[in-house]
Amino acid sequence: MLYLIGLGLGDVTDITFKGLQIVRKVDKVFLESYTSILCANRDKTDLEKFYGREVIVADRETVETEAELILDEAVNKDVAMLVVGDPFGATTHTDLILRAVQKNIPYKVIHNASIMNAIGCCGLQLYSFGETVSIPFWTDSWKPESFFEKIVNNIKNNLHTLCLLGAFIFTLFNVLDSRFSPDIKVKEKSIEALMKGKQVYEKPRFMTVDIAAKQILEIIEQRNQENDYLCSQSLAVGLARVGADDQKIKYCSLLEMSETDIGPPLHCLIIPSRTLHPLEEEMLKLFR
Amino acid sequence: MLYLIGLGLGDVTDITFKGLQIVRKVDKVFLESYTSILCANRDKTDLEKFYGREVIVADRETVETEAELILDEAVNKDVAMLVVGDPFGATTHTDLILRAVQKNIPYKVIHNASIMNAIGCCGLQLYSFGETVSIPFWTDSWKPESFFEKIVNNIKNNLHTLCLLGAFIFTLFNVLDSRFSPDIKVKEKSIEALMKGKQVYEKPRFMTVDIAAKQILEIIEQRNQENDYLCSQSLAVGLARVGADDQKIKYCSLLEMSETDIGPPLHCLIIPSRTLHPLEEEMLKLFR
Repeated sequence: MLYLIGLGLGDVTDITFKGLQIVRKVDKVFLESYTSILCANRDKTDLEKFYGREVIVADRETVETEAELILDEAVNKDVAMLVVGDPFGATTHTDLILRAVQKNIPYKVIHNASIMNAIGCCGLQLYSFGETVSIPFWTDSWKPESFFEKIVNNIKNNLHTLCLLGAFIFTLFNVLDSRFSPDIKVKEKSIEALMKGKQVYEKPRFMTVDIAAKQILEIIEQRNQENDYLCSQSLAVGLARVGADDQKIKYCSLLEMSETDIGPPLHCLIIPSRTLHPLEEEMLKLFR
Repeated sequence: MLYLIGLGLGDVTDITFKGLQIVRKVDKVFLESYTSILCANRDKTDLEKFYGREVIVADRETVETEAELILDEAVNKDVAMLVVGDPFGATTHTDLILRAVQKNIPYKVIHNASIMNAIGCCGLQLYSFGETVSIPFWTDSWKPESFFEKIVNNIKNNLHTLCLLGAFIFTLFNVLDSRFSPDIKVKEKSIEALMKGKQVYEKPRFMTVDIAAKQILEIIEQRNQENDYLCSQSLAVGLARVGADDQKIKYCSLLEMSETDIGPPLHCLIIPSRTLHPLEEEMLKLFR
């Protein structure tokens, strides 16, 4: 049996009681490395202490390329894979389920909160959100703008946009790369290693709301689209560490957001629709 | 202190460990009555047994009209309000938070899975969903169609649509009414009571995927829009009891869906976009 267990967004105690019972009884527990990178307060050691058992870190390479090893265990044993947020937040886990089904391994999903529903904490209604976008880090030569069209399209439909601001791990080639190791600092490699053809990692960079706002403002300026659907005075919601004790929410103009520091990762940004429900408006005022 | 605690979607054990710790230590625990109606396996008695303490059912009238009583308790005591899914699934809770803030009562939200993110279980990617719609029960004289335009608009934007199929409580006037009691059967009132001006309740009716599909097909037929964006052969995903042990997912045409029984409530329906990601397609095939 393969269990995919969501850990939620805060700390180790955000696992569900059901999930915890499973973790304590299965034969092996794997932790997807994203979790250990994305959540400072939920690394392998914290989890092992809380569960009272060993947790094996499966880095993304393991999950994708060596999923077979995990699934081989699941044929005759009970195996749990721990995932930050909800198990269906990343396609990696859909892939793991499909492989399990192919091997006739039964699977069970233990859901939890994810950023996709926890953003309701700012007061904006979840059913008034349009398509979610990801805002990537720009480089000097790589400035994709497709997310901008999607935001504008949502505004035209009077819908809010959740902008996910991910953690990106760059190799020394400065190419976006989703392959990374569970402990970046330890596994960080040198140019020397690179020359030998090995994978090279830099420390992860986390996109913050100020950078995201700056990139949006740059597109607005280039297109001379001020006063259209989005302008520097358009209001946005910046959220940091949603679901954690030190969660922070800020509601201000894009211009102000571009100069705002809401602390450590993870961040996300919301561009609300132009017309708000009175309750949405009142809630957002709390974060002005 | 006011705690708003999400109970998730399955049974009593879907509360988070953090939520459970709070429930066990606070002075008073209220249960929003929606929860006891919507989730057969999480009524007051089950919860009290699991928590080892008293749980007070606060029906929707209490939460909305008499929120003051709950908040008065929260001024000097620690009070928890239990909510099915995630606390930000309903505007009622936003309203409760706003009132708490006005009274300088600190609040804390314990997130959990809600239908808004747990629908990922069918394999469709959450960030490819457009605006969420609600499909209401039609009567002979009341057949709102606004949800249809929204579905078509999402399809045009190549986005999936989550159609929420709620539980509706009708008064004897047959008017949609969100006011209801925690135990419908006990509180069900007679025409006699109605004549005295009291609120009257019928048993809750739950919208099912077959009825939702029928209503969509009726609109398609009326508008003669076959072969346009939506037709009777368009594929849809019907989901029942998401997150529970007896969860059921069915992927078939709208026509087949209109003749499908996927069991007890709650149901929801998804109209996928016309172009699917290969992983989405592969996952959906599991439910054909």
